[in-house]
Amino acid sequence: MATLRVNLQERSYEIVNRPGALGQCGALAAQVLRGRLACVVSDSRVAPLYADTVLESLRGAGLEPFLLTVSAGEQSKCPAQLAQLWEQMAAHGMTRSDTVFALGGGVVGDLAGFAAATMLRGVDLVQLPTTLLAQVDSSVGGKVAVDLRAGKNLAGCFYQPKLVVMDPETLNTLPDRVFADGMAEVVKYGCIWDEALFARLEALPDRAAVTAVVEEITTACCDIKRQVVEQDEHDLGLRMLLNFGHTMGHVYEKAYRYETYTHGEAVAAGMVDAARLGELLGHTPSGTAERIAALVRRHGLPAAIHAGRADVEAALRLDKKNLEGALHFVFLERLGRARTERVARETILAHWRDGAWT
Amino acid sequence: MATLRVNLQERSYEIVNRPGALGQCGALAAQVLRGRLACVVSDSRVAPLYADTVLESLRGAGLEPFLLTVSAGEQSKCPAQLAQLWEQMAAHGMTRSDTVFALGGGVVGDLAGFAAATMLRGVDLVQLPTTLLAQVDSSVGGKVAVDLRAGKNLAGCFYQPKLVVMDPETLNTLPDRVFADGMAEVVKYGCIWDEALFARLEALPDRAAVTAVVEEITTACCDIKRQVVEQDEHDLGLRMLLNFGHTMGHVYEKAYRYETYTHGEAVAAGMVDAARLGELLGHTPSGTAERIAALVRRHGLPAAIHAGRADVEAALRLDKKNLEGALHFVFLERLGRARTERVARETILAHWRDGAWT
Repeated sequence: MATLRVNLQERSYEIVNRPGALGQCGALAAQVLRGRLACVVSDSRVAPLYADTVLESLRGAGLEPFLLTVSAGEQSKCPAQLAQLWEQMAAHGMTRSDTVFALGGGVVGDLAGFAAATMLRGVDLVQLPTTLLAQVDSSVGGKVAVDLRAGKNLAGCFYQPKLVVMDPETLNTLPDRVFADGMAEVVKYGCIWDEALFARLEALPDRAAVTAVVEEITTACCDIKRQVVEQDEHDLGLRMLLNFGHTMGHVYEKAYRYETYTHGEAVAAGMVDAARLGELLGHTPSGTAERIAALVRRHGLPAAIHAGRADVEAALRLDKKNLEGALHFVFLERLGRARTERVARETILAHWRDGAWT
Repeated sequence: MATLRVNLQERSYEIVNRPGALGQCGALAAQVLRGRLACVVSDSRVAPLYADTVLESLRGAGLEPFLLTVSAGEQSKCPAQLAQLWEQMAAHGMTRSDTVFALGGGVVGDLAGFAAATMLRGVDLVQLPTTLLAQVDSSVGGKVAVDLRAGKNLAGCFYQPKLVVMDPETLNTLPDRVFADGMAEVVKYGCIWDEALFARLEALPDRAAVTAVVEEITTACCDIKRQVVEQDEHDLGLRMLLNFGHTMGHVYEKAYRYETYTHGEAVAAGMVDAARLGELLGHTPSGTAERIAALVRRHGLPAAIHAGRADVEAALRLDKKNLEGALHFVFLERLGRARTERVARETILAHWRDGAWT
């Protein structure tokens, strides 16, 4: 079992990570919450598996839960679904002292988190992440959002949960591809912050080996994200390091309309790209890209993705990390250490040839 | 001319209030902004009057403005219109260093402000309030929101502008009823905070007399709101005083589906109600309600509104000031001094009989 404490300027919260934690979420939440109503938001894939456990635990703690279920999949992370959640929360008579519980993966966490951040100008939020990706990434750090037609996560805000409860046992029900989706972010933490974590991952041959120690690994990742977020809550500097692999990752997600590749698959290839570009520009020791490529391949993640030049150009132009036209790109100084550099789009495009770097 | 500085924990901003200020908004904004794109949001009533002045001023300051116009009226303050603004902002390629200018009354300020607060997780916001209500109320304090089917302002957040520029000359184009709408809030500031302001308003017989000194009056109101907001940015205590008259005001707005009465008209009657209930419960000196009634009537505002008991009950139940079932009600200890008391809904209903208090 592990409990992390995230200390932020505005408020702090705990991340509880242990087997069986989901069934104790009511008792855990009762220590930090005020209101009576508990709005559990989940999706059509996760609700049948875990909603009963959560509802029962909340009832046992004296809360009055109700369940709102959205369709599973990224398409639910949209303004129309957000508006529907708002209306449903209002119809259930939520007041400012009540709480939203986000039960599911990153889509539910981002969507329900944004609804909580804005319902009555902010009600309490408890994250109950059930995927590896959500456990190590989206449930820590307070970024919540919906997608727009022009791109992912374009409308949202920063909103910290009151509590995060994650249960390693929920990872056992994940399909391999969804587990791998999260592994890409796990590898990312090793790349940017913790060489020992990276080396440890290299020593774990497959999913079963990772699963045997997954609680330690997710806790290590959350602890890294905690350190980064504590120092840069509003994404003005250090936090950009978390975008390692994401510049090209977003290019691929967009080029394939978020259909062909998962976020993790796109980021896996994007990390290899970033290491390779870093090697070409002299920021990154040679051989780094190959180690990352070998590690992601082991979990069924792609080390390269094909994209056309027009797609790359268009996607780079809309990248959120564009500040006044320049692009912030995260490079590895070595495995375990990253820094951002401003790079002209032209530099990236000059080295990019149809999925390969030259 | 007057400039106020609002000092908040997170960031501070100036309120510039002087004749002709709208035509100088570009130069004023250039001192505090970073980006190049300026998204001006206005409505179909205000844009024909002032958009050219604003666009020209922004261009003159080296910014690249574009105009998004929504239909005039409260019905634009809805999730669907918010989503459309998000999509339009994204389509124009806004980046995190760009700025939203909200040109209009409270609807535009709240809607465009909410869009700015959430676009790319927050872009800069400049409020250009053109109505008396927006100048003294909604442009100061950082509350932004949209309405839901269940009620007004139910989804939103707190988001401070970088700058507020108000021009008293824009008030001259307001129809009498819209001017009066703002006068209700002006009277409110006198009631809760400044007996001398209340007495001064009693000495101004009509709109023309107010207009002659309106810059002083709006500055005084903003300064009161500034003091309140500085002490309670996130609406946890003192700021509740600003809701004087609003509990019953919201009841009336809702009972008449936001059609028959303006916000100011509903609040005017609500302030008289709150004073009368205060007199009945012994919180407020007798005669207070009558002085408020006389003052609001002078500006064409109603001192009483009829509503059915079922409407009152239903509306009180959804009031946002409900914390764990109890209702926070703002009473006057005397003119110029207010305090909140927790009041049971039953107490209010026991004294309420069909538009009158007994």
